[in-house]
Amino acid sequence: MGLPLAELARLVDGTIEGDANLIISGVNTLQHAAQGQLSFFSNQKYKKVLQATNASAVLVGSNAPPRGTRTWVVVANPSLAWAKIATAFHPARKFAPGISVQAFIDATARVDASATVMAGAYVSGGAHVGARTVLFPGVFIGDNATVGNDTVLSSNVSVMDRCVVGSRCMIHPSSVVGADGFGFAFDPEKPEHFKIPQSGIVRIEDDVEIGACSTIDRATVGETVIGQGAKIDNLVQVAHNCTVGPMSILCAQVGLSGTTELGTGVVLGGQVGVAGHLRIGDLAKVGAQSGVMSDIDDGAEMMGSPVTPLRDHLRNMGVFQRLPELLRELRDLRKRVETLENKETT
Amino acid sequence: MGLPLAELARLVDGTIEGDANLIISGVNTLQHAAQGQLSFFSNQKYKKVLQATNASAVLVGSNAPPRGTRTWVVVANPSLAWAKIATAFHPARKFAPGISVQAFIDATARVDASATVMAGAYVSGGAHVGARTVLFPGVFIGDNATVGNDTVLSSNVSVMDRCVVGSRCMIHPSSVVGADGFGFAFDPEKPEHFKIPQSGIVRIEDDVEIGACSTIDRATVGETVIGQGAKIDNLVQVAHNCTVGPMSILCAQVGLSGTTELGTGVVLGGQVGVAGHLRIGDLAKVGAQSGVMSDIDDGAEMMGSPVTPLRDHLRNMGVFQRLPELLRELRDLRKRVETLENKETT
Amino acid sequence: MGLPLAELARLVDGTIEGDANLIISGVNTLQHAAQGQLSFFSNQKYKKVLQATNASAVLVGSNAPPRGTRTWVVVANPSLAWAKIATAFHPARKFAPGISVQAFIDATARVDASATVMAGAYVSGGAHVGARTVLFPGVFIGDNATVGNDTVLSSNVSVMDRCVVGSRCMIHPSSVVGADGFGFAFDPEKPEHFKIPQSGIVRIEDDVEIGACSTIDRATVGETVIGQGAKIDNLVQVAHNCTVGPMSILCAQVGLSGTTELGTGVVLGGQVGVAGHLRIGDLAKVGAQSGVMSDIDDGAEMMGSPVTPLRDHLRNMGVFQRLPELLRELRDLRKRVETLENKETT
Repeated sequence: MGLPLAELARLVDGTIEGDANLIISGVNTLQHAAQGQLSFFSNQKYKKVLQATNASAVLVGSNAPPRGTRTWVVVANPSLAWAKIATAFHPARKFAPGISVQAFIDATARVDASATVMAGAYVSGGAHVGARTVLFPGVFIGDNATVGNDTVLSSNVSVMDRCVVGSRCMIHPSSVVGADGFGFAFDPEKPEHFKIPQSGIVRIEDDVEIGACSTIDRATVGETVIGQGAKIDNLVQVAHNCTVGPMSILCAQVGLSGTTELGTGVVLGGQVGVAGHLRIGDLAKVGAQSGVMSDIDDGAEMMGSPVTPLRDHLRNMGVFQRLPELLRELRDLRKRVETLENKETT
Repeated sequence: MGLPLAELARLVDGTIEGDANLIISGVNTLQHAAQGQLSFFSNQKYKKVLQATNASAVLVGSNAPPRGTRTWVVVANPSLAWAKIATAFHPARKFAPGISVQAFIDATARVDASATVMAGAYVSGGAHVGARTVLFPGVFIGDNATVGNDTVLSSNVSVMDRCVVGSRCMIHPSSVVGADGFGFAFDPEKPEHFKIPQSGIVRIEDDVEIGACSTIDRATVGETVIGQGAKIDNLVQVAHNCTVGPMSILCAQVGLSGTTELGTGVVLGGQVGVAGHLRIGDLAKVGAQSGVMSDIDDGAEMMGSPVTPLRDHLRNMGVFQRLPELLRELRDLRKRVETLENKETT
Repeated sequence: MGLPLAELARLVDGTIEGDANLIISGVNTLQHAAQGQLSFFSNQKYKKVLQATNASAVLVGSNAPPRGTRTWVVVANPSLAWAKIATAFHPARKFAPGISVQAFIDATARVDASATVMAGAYVSGGAHVGARTVLFPGVFIGDNATVGNDTVLSSNVSVMDRCVVGSRCMIHPSSVVGADGFGFAFDPEKPEHFKIPQSGIVRIEDDVEIGACSTIDRATVGETVIGQGAKIDNLVQVAHNCTVGPMSILCAQVGLSGTTELGTGVVLGGQVGVAGHLRIGDLAKVGAQSGVMSDIDDGAEMMGSPVTPLRDHLRNMGVFQRLPELLRELRDLRKRVETLENKETT
């Protein structure tokens, strides 16, 4: 049931130091690995865990510390190598092609013969589902929507009318692509919030992964875009007309307001909120729970609500947590100044 | 394919200044409008964008700046007029009436003959679905629930037993109306969290729009109410026994705790959290990411966690971001006072 | 239609003071109770509401204040007793056993004959559904997943492949158990975020309740665990490899990052965010909207972002809200010190 270490090392351009004849039964973290398993070490913080691990072999970088008597596989990037080897043990699931008779496919929809459409999936008129793409039960594809090749839409995912999902995408259960943007014009005469038609679409480029229960709203006019290779976690809100740049990372419960633009490789921590009509520059990073209310430069690291540079935020928070002490000190000083003033006047 | 500008102007009681014979091909924002399109200008912030726009005609207020050589349509409310004209170009989708044979309709349910029930929708016993109402695939209507006329429940929406949804409502995919409120009484003997039965309902009044993946919990006893014309964005949580007043606006990822009451026309920014058993007064506004832990007066503008009046919050945050400087200053003063004291005693 | 008060009192080991022959028509809060209804009083804050209530009988603790002329039922724990009596009036719904012909059950799945599987539910190959368990429409059970006895999975709930849900659980609509954890290893060569296979599972123990639109991610390797009797509200995110201890309470919109461990009986307020690889001790409490960035001791009460002990946080916030005043005071002192210094030098 195992795989030869030598073969795994070849897969990741690794050099074995130790027993090259090991058979590896699986992968795990240093802490939880059992004998026969392969793990990786890339963070000095886990040095002690490394010493105690039961893993039979460990992936390490070439600049890792003296390595003792265990079997090592020296690689350029231990965590990436581990991910690749994990994929050898847990390859992506294969689905048998075929359209369930319990699925609903509109007569004007085009579903590739190699696609998998499970019972209870629904493909509306004019929609297109690409080669080897998988629609789980409860998936809804709206009128004239397009899904590329090798994409998996998991259970109860909705892709609304005219939206476009690329190839090799993965969307997890209950997520919604292309619900109406949240736009109203207040009419004080009636009074009512008059609905602004949301006539645009969502375009999700290739290689995008979207978590469960996330919502990507369609544009008011034009497109809401999720760029190539972006990864979006669970319960994330992307409002109408946003652009999320290629390879950006949005952690769970992030919320973007309308018409905000993220550059390439942006990382937003969990529960970050971003106001509308802003630009967050390429490779910028925003810490968890932050509130972004102004543009952010390329490469900046920001935190707080409203955000400031990370370093400033940490300093501000450091003083914040000493505020009562600061107040006492201020009062003490006032008394001392009063004393001095009194002496002065006497 | 276009519509005459003269006709569009009539629709919004507008006065054309310029070429009254224009044919308009569509609507767009100032920034993205192409030739032949109509846009609007209502915010002085976009003056430069106005100058550069390719729009062939622009809706403006009567008090707008000198207007140059373009074609203008002078109206009372440019953004509202634009929304109405956009609706002329993008009218609400019409659905053919009819109940799919692949839908499940309990024998004791009443579904109006003019309703549209798509394949995979489910209507439970005793439920009632009104005239011209649309149930998308995956919609679940619980026992004895009621949905009014001209309402659209999008894919995978759940309306649980006995809940009431009004007329002309729109609920976006995967949202849940009437799941159990979160109520338990701790029993230290067992120990366990004993479930408090959630026997109340949700009542959603007319003209309400609810985004995707939002959750409106049923009352423990009585009703959770979403008032007429309220608009709720995506991923919003409304807990048991809350009342959201008419025409209130809840932006994405807002969370209301139990038994909280919002007045008329309240606006809560994105990611706002509100504690339980509170009242937020009519027309009050709460800034994004705020935490409300006490009642809010009618018309107040609040921000922060916990909230304070917006103006105070901005002042507090202004000083917060200078705290390290303040600390340095305090230390400097202390030294100077010490110096003075030393001189005094010598 | 009512139940005799004497019988209800017996149910909760209560002693009636007053009219033991009352027939009770239902339960309600003190504020909303009508004549004929039973309520409870346990919080001195509601003394005035108690005096004004229309309830015909009120559950009170043995140490409650002088009780006047109404009918009382003296019990050890009024809120718990009320919950039990409410359950007598609103017993959990019974479902007729049976598998709808409009459900999809894979030939290799095992569904107990006493289970209820409604139209539009889907049970994949190798999955197991226990006795008296209920699957609402739109439920998806993945390959080889297991659901225990007496569990209710409401509409459009997804339980992904190999995950385990215990007995007597309740999962509300659109929630997702076992979507992929959010794990990628960045490959700068391509560049791409290489997907780390999420080969673990979710294990939900017995007596767990999970709200609507919540997401519990599967482990990268091993298990994400929700402990016995834990209660999770709506729109909550539990990331891969987390452990939520028995009887913990996670309020709405809480987010846990990966590999975080909650002890027994932990309470997290609404919108709390917790960073990864942390431990929150038994019985610890974290206030709403807090951000947890370090371990928390057993029994601690914490608040803020980042969290500090509740008491410290309240003190810090107290000074925060007086910062402009503090700044003015500091400037005033500086002037006074300057005056003193000038005198000194003259």
